[in-house]
Amino acid sequence: MSTTAAVLEPGATIGVLGGGQLGRMLALAAARLGFKCHIFSPDPDSPAFDVVHRTTCADYTDTQALDRFAENVDVVTYEFENVPAETAVFLAARLPVLPDPKVLATTQDRLAEKSFIAGLDIGTAPFAAVGAPAELAAALDRVGRPAVLKTRRFGYDGKGQATIANGTDPEAAWREVGGQPCILEAFVPFAREVSVIAARGADGTVECFDVTENEHRDHILKVSRVPAAVTDAAALQARRIAETIADKFGYVGVLAVELFVLREGGLLVNEIAPRVHNSGHWTLDGASVSQFEQHVRAVAGWPLGKPIRHGRVEMVNLIGSEVEDYRAWLSVPGAAVHLYGKAAARPGRKMGHVTRVFAE
Amino acid sequence: MSTTAAVLEPGATIGVLGGGQLGRMLALAAARLGFKCHIFSPDPDSPAFDVVHRTTCADYTDTQALDRFAENVDVVTYEFENVPAETAVFLAARLPVLPDPKVLATTQDRLAEKSFIAGLDIGTAPFAAVGAPAELAAALDRVGRPAVLKTRRFGYDGKGQATIANGTDPEAAWREVGGQPCILEAFVPFAREVSVIAARGADGTVECFDVTENEHRDHILKVSRVPAAVTDAAALQARRIAETIADKFGYVGVLAVELFVLREGGLLVNEIAPRVHNSGHWTLDGASVSQFEQHVRAVAGWPLGKPIRHGRVEMVNLIGSEVEDYRAWLSVPGAAVHLYGKAAARPGRKMGHVTRVFAE
Repeated sequence: MSTTAAVLEPGATIGVLGGGQLGRMLALAAARLGFKCHIFSPDPDSPAFDVVHRTTCADYTDTQALDRFAENVDVVTYEFENVPAETAVFLAARLPVLPDPKVLATTQDRLAEKSFIAGLDIGTAPFAAVGAPAELAAALDRVGRPAVLKTRRFGYDGKGQATIANGTDPEAAWREVGGQPCILEAFVPFAREVSVIAARGADGTVECFDVTENEHRDHILKVSRVPAAVTDAAALQARRIAETIADKFGYVGVLAVELFVLREGGLLVNEIAPRVHNSGHWTLDGASVSQFEQHVRAVAGWPLGKPIRHGRVEMVNLIGSEVEDYRAWLSVPGAAVHLYGKAAARPGRKMGHVTRVFAE
Repeated sequence: MSTTAAVLEPGATIGVLGGGQLGRMLALAAARLGFKCHIFSPDPDSPAFDVVHRTTCADYTDTQALDRFAENVDVVTYEFENVPAETAVFLAARLPVLPDPKVLATTQDRLAEKSFIAGLDIGTAPFAAVGAPAELAAALDRVGRPAVLKTRRFGYDGKGQATIANGTDPEAAWREVGGQPCILEAFVPFAREVSVIAARGADGTVECFDVTENEHRDHILKVSRVPAAVTDAAALQARRIAETIADKFGYVGVLAVELFVLREGGLLVNEIAPRVHNSGHWTLDGASVSQFEQHVRAVAGWPLGKPIRHGRVEMVNLIGSEVEDYRAWLSVPGAAVHLYGKAAARPGRKMGHVTRVFAE
């Protein structure tokens, strides 16, 4: 039942697991199409709670709350990939959950994800599993130095990662990431980081947004620019990779594929996010249909939109105390300010973003 | 106190009187800027209730409910002009209400509104007050035939209007509109109907969107096109008229001025709507800042945006059963579909709209 996308009528209710800014922007897009959203999140301060009428504040393991949630919504989706896979499976026994929970099982584990990608003959950085400190030496022999040790689960924005350079003691890196099952990845001397935001409809149609170039600061996305400064051939290849991944997953909804563009021009997949993605926020103002609307259309069983980009687009994240810059941005002609309604501007916290569209 | 616009911080709560699609789209725009909205509406099926977390369903004369509402919001605005002026005055004694309730008193009465406009040396159709059937003959002598008899209060979308042509018995028209105090207006043989959506900030800055041309069907707006097919001089004059009206009201927020373009090119003001307006819906997709965002910025004491139009824009209303056309529109490249979440598609009811942006 879980993979069957019913065609929803306007007025239907979409259940969203997760209450952050992605859930908030999904709910705003759903409202524009006449849908209601019901947000399920354990965090009472969830930014998405403010923009919907019905909310459930409960733990993801609270089966009573999940049962009530399932009875009150027509389809379930999620706004972040660390929703416990068991939660998605529990719900999928009751109503359609899109994308399919099996995607979570793959993307929640960096090793499973990389193995899946490599199995599609899509390039990744060389990698090796590290289940215990004793396996570090052999993994380093295979992957080479410098390398990055990453926990298999629950990493984002650079958390759970340690670099192993020439002088680094591998066991110190192991302790740094918390002594958990890891993947060791070769450090890739890339020229650029890009991403493809792809939507796949229930009918199998795939629509990709134009390839976006991403600039990180302290492992957190700071600026996205579109189009990316890559060759047409590389852009086409990047889109093909995203399409292949979406097809192989039998995906329904929006996913993001992050890629490295190598100095000599090749592409390697860095990771997959089975959800709307920060590097696609530019689509809210810079395209005829946004990533959020595409996701809503897909999980509603509606046809995808054909994205038309309005020009050259730049998106800047407002991180931590940078949120105060909103005042200055309000007066910049053409700048679209988005604030997520978060109370505390903690360091590293994504508080909002600003998009600008320029004539091409 | 009522006209003092405090500068709100993100996270503040904007109270909105009225829960229709205009309140819904205001709330969506407010959310994007990090504000919460609290919708006050007597209708339990209010479309705006679905997109906010806090709602009050109570009559506009329920002073207890209004008191609680006032305690829970930082500023009050309204989404439609027939909110009882006493409600706005009651609230204005407690917190800022924007635009100022005195604007409602003027615009709720067609005679007061027309007199106000004429007092600014801005053209209107010839008009005369009709308080009783005995005054009809003298009014017709002054205004001429054909003329339109309109109730002074609570008219919209052609309701409360009757045409008096050469053969019409004036007393029949009087009975048709319900025997209420009326205004008799000369029928104007106009070439086009246009509107100007103007925003005025708390600092007195006025920003007008480009003049929009409107096509009605059965007295209900069907299509808006921008730019209007008028001369630059006429467009400039229309904007000046809107600016003058906004300034004279000491207005804070968005207002719409509907005008007739005469066959020989002159402009007459038809009516003022002290709120966001259907003929400004194109700004959601067709401009760098929407009318809804401008209104939120104004009532929040924030600087207005400088609207940049993305191209030639066409907005089509989906009225009554036309809402079913959304399915076909979803597949039209570049078409942005907006549905208001209304359950019953009654004849004449505005259910949604579609915007298309074309290269100019």
